[in-house]
Order: sequence, then structure tokens, then C-alpha cells
Amino acid sequence: MLDQIDQEMEKRNIQAIIILGDTTLGDPNLTYVVGGSLAGGGLYFKRIRQEPLLVTSILDAPTAQKLSTVKRIETFTEWGLERLAQQYGRYEAKLHLLTEILRKEGVDGKIVLYGRNDLGHGTYFVDMLRNLGVNVTGDNSPSVVDTARETKDQKELEKLRDVGRRTGRVIEAIVDVLSSLKRKRGHLVLGKKRATIGAVKALISSNLAAEGLIAPEGTIFAIGASSADPHNAGAPSDAIKEGKLIVFDIFPQAESSYWCDITRTYIIGKASKKDKQLYETVHEAQKTCLDFIRPGVSGEEAMRKACDVIERHGYHTIREIYEGKAEKLDSGFNHILGHGVGLMIHELPILGFLSKDPLRLGQVVTVEPGVYLPGYGGVRIEDTIAITPRGVNYLARVGREFELT
Amino acid sequence: MLDQIDQEMEKRNIQAIIILGDTTLGDPNLTYVVGGSLAGGGLYFKRIRQEPLLVTSILDAPTAQKLSTVKRIETFTEWGLERLAQQYGRYEAKLHLLTEILRKEGVDGKIVLYGRNDLGHGTYFVDMLRNLGVNVTGDNSPSVVDTARETKDQKELEKLRDVGRRTGRVIEAIVDVLSSLKRKRGHLVLGKKRATIGAVKALISSNLAAEGLIAPEGTIFAIGASSADPHNAGAPSDAIKEGKLIVFDIFPQAESSYWCDITRTYIIGKASKKDKQLYETVHEAQKTCLDFIRPGVSGEEAMRKACDVIERHGYHTIREIYEGKAEKLDSGFNHILGHGVGLMIHELPILGFLSKDPLRLGQVVTVEPGVYLPGYGGVRIEDTIAITPRGVNYLARVGREFELT
Repeated sequence: MLDQIDQEMEKRNIQAIIILGDTTLGDPNLTYVVGGSLAGGGLYFKRIRQEPLLVTSILDAPTAQKLSTVKRIETFTEWGLERLAQQYGRYEAKLHLLTEILRKEGVDGKIVLYGRNDLGHGTYFVDMLRNLGVNVTGDNSPSVVDTARETKDQKELEKLRDVGRRTGRVIEAIVDVLSSLKRKRGHLVLGKKRATIGAVKALISSNLAAEGLIAPEGTIFAIGASSADPHNAGAPSDAIKEGKLIVFDIFPQAESSYWCDITRTYIIGKASKKDKQLYETVHEAQKTCLDFIRPGVSGEEAMRKACDVIERHGYHTIREIYEGKAEKLDSGFNHILGHGVGLMIHELPILGFLSKDPLRLGQVVTVEPGVYLPGYGGVRIEDTIAITPRGVNYLARVGREFELT
Repeated sequence: MLDQIDQEMEKRNIQAIIILGDTTLGDPNLTYVVGGSLAGGGLYFKRIRQEPLLVTSILDAPTAQKLSTVKRIETFTEWGLERLAQQYGRYEAKLHLLTEILRKEGVDGKIVLYGRNDLGHGTYFVDMLRNLGVNVTGDNSPSVVDTARETKDQKELEKLRDVGRRTGRVIEAIVDVLSSLKRKRGHLVLGKKRATIGAVKALISSNLAAEGLIAPEGTIFAIGASSADPHNAGAPSDAIKEGKLIVFDIFPQAESSYWCDITRTYIIGKASKKDKQLYETVHEAQKTCLDFIRPGVSGEEAMRKACDVIERHGYHTIREIYEGKAEKLDSGFNHILGHGVGLMIHELPILGFLSKDPLRLGQVVTVEPGVYLPGYGGVRIEDTIAITPRGVNYLARVGREFELT
């Protein structure tokens, strides 16, 4: 939460933090402290235990005043950017503007720069600041801002629930369509055409648009053997067929910049015994984890629970690699159990074998075990949940139909 | 263009470049060298004058093999990431993996790290590498990768034209709707409801979805006084009215990750003399610039041409600030003339007062003069064009209607 920033700065003995970038697009740290999107980004300055300052372009200042929780908003023009740019060039002007802010605000201690910037520019920028005598240091992950972002406050949870509700409605609309596909001359039809992944994806897009959501990373809708590859988005020309595993993984973003991530696996018609066993295994693994997760347990412990269930049913898991029993995994559960969701689709915390830290109240994570049989198909079931005092709270309630008949 | 990388490395005496990140989302440099999107990002390594290496997760490797022009693709698992992660933790494992690559590939000279990463983490990462004896240096803007990305090859131009064509169709669909709004009980109606910005934006969203486009930064559709603020996206509840300036600025992205940026200004019904003069001024400024721009002229020269026209018609321009004649601008042309468009909506080159470098063949830029009268309204006309040997080539051909009657 935003109010953890001072405490995290204190722990690291940081006098001031600066979060900067030319756009909030794709920059969760800057979006987080600004409180929304600014086309031209900005510069956020905060001295420990003091109110922050946000500097934006004159064009973005009105938007910043509307959306930001930062009270003190000033413009680059007021800080002399155009003058500095004529003297030092556009890029180095920001460097001198920053040293001007540090000087005026009386900062002489350790500072850290954040914001998602190209590392080639960033390294140059930091080296130049150090040459000018500024005490810049790095901040390993989880950084001050990562730590604050990891636990969500009530306003953020409400935004996440809002994306969740809308995502749930998109899934339901698609399930309705899949459940009512008609068979004609030996294949399934959608509208008057053959039902293909491409046609379903067009429907997903229009439903997302109707909900005011976008999917900057696309949507996974993969059938049959393609569903055995967890990152295969599905081939548009593939026909929708009965009796084949369909993995539908949807991860849209709302205009609030918050994301949601949900996966369901379906079979149109009747599932085979093999498919049912696969589904039940993953379902049991997810349920076991959802029952287990609460503040204080670690991501690693949850991951082990998932592997226990999946291995008990006779499938391989990535644990074999971590335990040095295998060099690579040809089938089974080959990814992490989950990841944080917020202003990025993948953020902290991670639920995996390296996740020793206890989970905390207010974290939002996916719980998404999967089992994949190459050349055949896969099953993944994923929900996005918030960690509450007593366990977990679903950010979206979505049905768990498997056979669509 | 991608094949400029060696030459730019040579100029800077760089032995190897590394472009890395946990996602290609919002990371144009990584997307550029990978040749598309990878959910978990990757690590691109290139020694000067040698074929590059791309390292991805086992999950992303199949996608990388399909979409990437990089021939040598290996996985983090093959490079021992899980083993290193158990020894050093998840984050520092990448550091040791990188030093392993540098060692095996015989790199002992200057290297630069690129990729859009948080600067807090990035500074830590670079400092650690330096502590391990790696000669890491920064690369100021325009960096090796910036320079390559600045000029587009034929494949990129085709992708940009494709986004352009689709964006053009969305604009035309909206113009058709605006042109045929009916008047009922004193206000304009859309469908059976009062025509509002919100209703038009819903139409824009569904048209974008139908074209397979997304608008991660939203769409500007602002009417009346709101249109005088270039970054005001428009209030959903505002009614669409006759005789008011409407600025429609649309900047969508396709699944290719390339963007397009077009603005048109409309009035429903008849324009006043004041509005016509405003529109003609901006139109003349844009035409003058489009006729002027060709390889060899600078962004600054083009910017001056725009200001010449706008000032001749009696409006203020940002030149007054650059020339020290004004501290701030209350009305007029208060932004740059244009910016590059490619894998980012705002990228190099910039067309503004600080742009001394000659424009080059293959650059893609917006040309978007605007004049804004606070409390009243604004006009902006913007096209995205490629710089060709003889001048400019429109990436989208969109009508220039002003009065929609």
C-alpha cells in the first residue's frame, strides 16, 4: 500500500525517491504513484516522511490535478525544462532539472530512481547523476515501490473486483456461445460459418470492448494439442471441435490500468475418462491450494501442495527439476502456481519453488495449476484471488463447467 | 533498421549488447529484437558482427521459434536458471546467467544493457555486474537500439500501413455516425438515446475491436471547451452538440505491436467564421509542413514552418517560450509538431524546437499542428507519415471533412 513507502525507505536508509518516465503506459510504478495514466508521464519526487511532488508537462497537468492523490503538482515548464533543454539538449535537461529539485528540496543523502525506463538510457542517467555528486543507489527486487504495490488497499481491491466482474461476464458470454453451437454437415457452426478459433476470438474481442476492457497481451483460446502448450494463444484457423480440450485463458486490463487473469478449460460434448482424470487432478490441485492459502504460508508451500496432488495422480511436475531429478519436463505441471496481479499482469508475489516469504494480507495472486500432455492437450484452471485474514477472496466468481453440452 | 545495430555498436565501441526484460509488454526494444511478443520476455545477446542469441523460458520458446528472426534460440532452463535461482535467488540468478553467457561467448569488452526495466532494479543489476568485473556502460538517447528503431524497413512499414488502414476505417465509421445523427426534442440522438461522448466512445471501442485493434492509452473525443486541452480525453456525459469543435484523436495498436496516430477535428452542422479561420490556419500549417518535410530537413525547421503559418494568422505559438518572449502560453499552438510512431506511440524522432538532426528516409512521424483557445475549443489535424525520397507518404488516407452536415 502507498502508505508503506516511508517505512520501506526508512528500512533502506533512503532519503528521497524519484519515479520518472516519459509515459505511464507500461510503467506500473509511475502509474501507481501518480494514481492513473498521464500520456507524457512525469517525475514523482518524495523525500522521506514528506508530501510528494509530481512534475508533469503543461499538457498533462490538468489530468494530473484531476486524477492524482498527489497534492503538489507542478510543471516541467515551471522548473525551466525548455530553458535547460536549449542549454543541455532534451535528454540531459531532465538530469539537470532533477538535480535542481534535489538542491531546492535539500536532499544530500541516498536516493533511488525508479520507473520503467530503457536500461541503456537509465545507466547513462545514473552515471551522469553520480558524476554530478548525487548519491544514487539501486534497489533490488522487491524494491520500495514493489513492496508497496504488493499489498492492495481497498480502493485497489475494488478496481480489481471491477475488472474481475467484467471479465467474468465476457467468459460467461463465450461459454453461452460454445454451449449452443450447432452441428451442420459434420462440423460446428457459429453464425453461418464454420466455428473456428478466429471466430471465437472475434467474439471475445467484441465482448471485451463492450465491457470497456482491452487485452494488450491477447487471449489464449487453444484447442486440442495446442492447449498442451501453456503459452500457445490458439491458431485462428483451427476448427472448434467436440471432444477436444479447450484452454481459455483471458487476461484483460481496464481503463483503471488494473488487470484480471482467469483460465477455464472446457470440452464441448462429452469428456473421455482420460480428460476427466486430467481435469479432476487440476481441479483438486487448485482447490487444495485455495483452501491452504492464507496470510503466513509461503508461495513455496502452496506450490508443493499443488505438486503433491498432481504427482499423486501420476503426472510429472517441475519439482523434479528443482530437486535435480530431471533436466527437463516433457509433460505435466511445468510452470509456477501463480503470480501477483495488479497494475501488471505478472507482478509480485510469485507462488513457486523460490517463494520463501510468507504471503501477506491484501496481496492479489492467481492460483493456476495446469497439467499438459504434449501432442494431446492440457488443462489449466485459474482464478485471481485476494488474500484475506481467513483465506482467500475471489476477485471474480466464474462458473467451473467442464463439459459443455 | 535492425541491420544498423552493428554499425551503431561500432561507432560506440561496444563489444556486445544485451536486451532483457521479464515481458515484451510495454518494452519496445525487446519486442523489436525478438520480432514480436513473448509473455515472459527474454534475454537477447548480440556480439558485434555475430548472429544474436535469444534466451527465453521453456514456455515461450515455441512462440519465439515461430515469430523470431533470431535463429539461435535457447532456454533459461538450458542455461541453468533453476539451479542458479536456488543458489542466488530468483533475481540475482539472471545476473549470474548473464555473466555465464558473457564468459562462454568470450566477451571481455564494453557491453550495454537495454530493455525497459524499473530503474531501481536496473541500477542494482548494473552495479552488481560492475562489481563482478563486467564493463557495463550506459547509452544516451538515441541509443544503438533507438537509432535502429528510428528508421523502418519495408516489413515494418507494411505493418504500420496495416494499422493505418484499419484506423482509417474506424474513423470513417464514426464520421458516418456523426454525419447522420438525428435531432429529437432539441438534442442529437444516437440509437434511441441522447448522443453523448460516452456513447460515441462505446462505438469507437466496438469498431476498434472489429478491426482487431486496441487503444491502451484510450481515445480522445472532446467537444467544445474540453477540446481546447490537447490531452483531455472527453467527458463521457458530455452531449454531442451542433456547432461545437470536436477533436477526435485516435491512437490504436495492432497485434503486431505497431501503432497509428491520427487526429481530425469536426463540427456537426455549420462552422462559425471563427471556427473556420481556426481550422484553415491549422490545415494550412499542416499542409505547409507536409509539403516541406523530406530527408535532410530538420524537425526544428518543420516546427518553425508550422509556427510561421500559425503566428501569421494571429495565434500564439510555443516559439515564444523558446525565444524567451513568454513564460507560459495561455492559448495557441502549445505542443510539438510531431513524434515518431512505431512500437511506441511516442518515439523518436521528435519534430520540435530541439530537433536539429536531419530527418531520414524511413522515419515514421506524426505531423500534428494544433491551435487551442481555452474556454472555447481547439483544432488539431494529425496524420502519420513515412519519410520517402521525395517527401512524405501517408500511412493512412483519411478524409479531411470539417463540417459534418
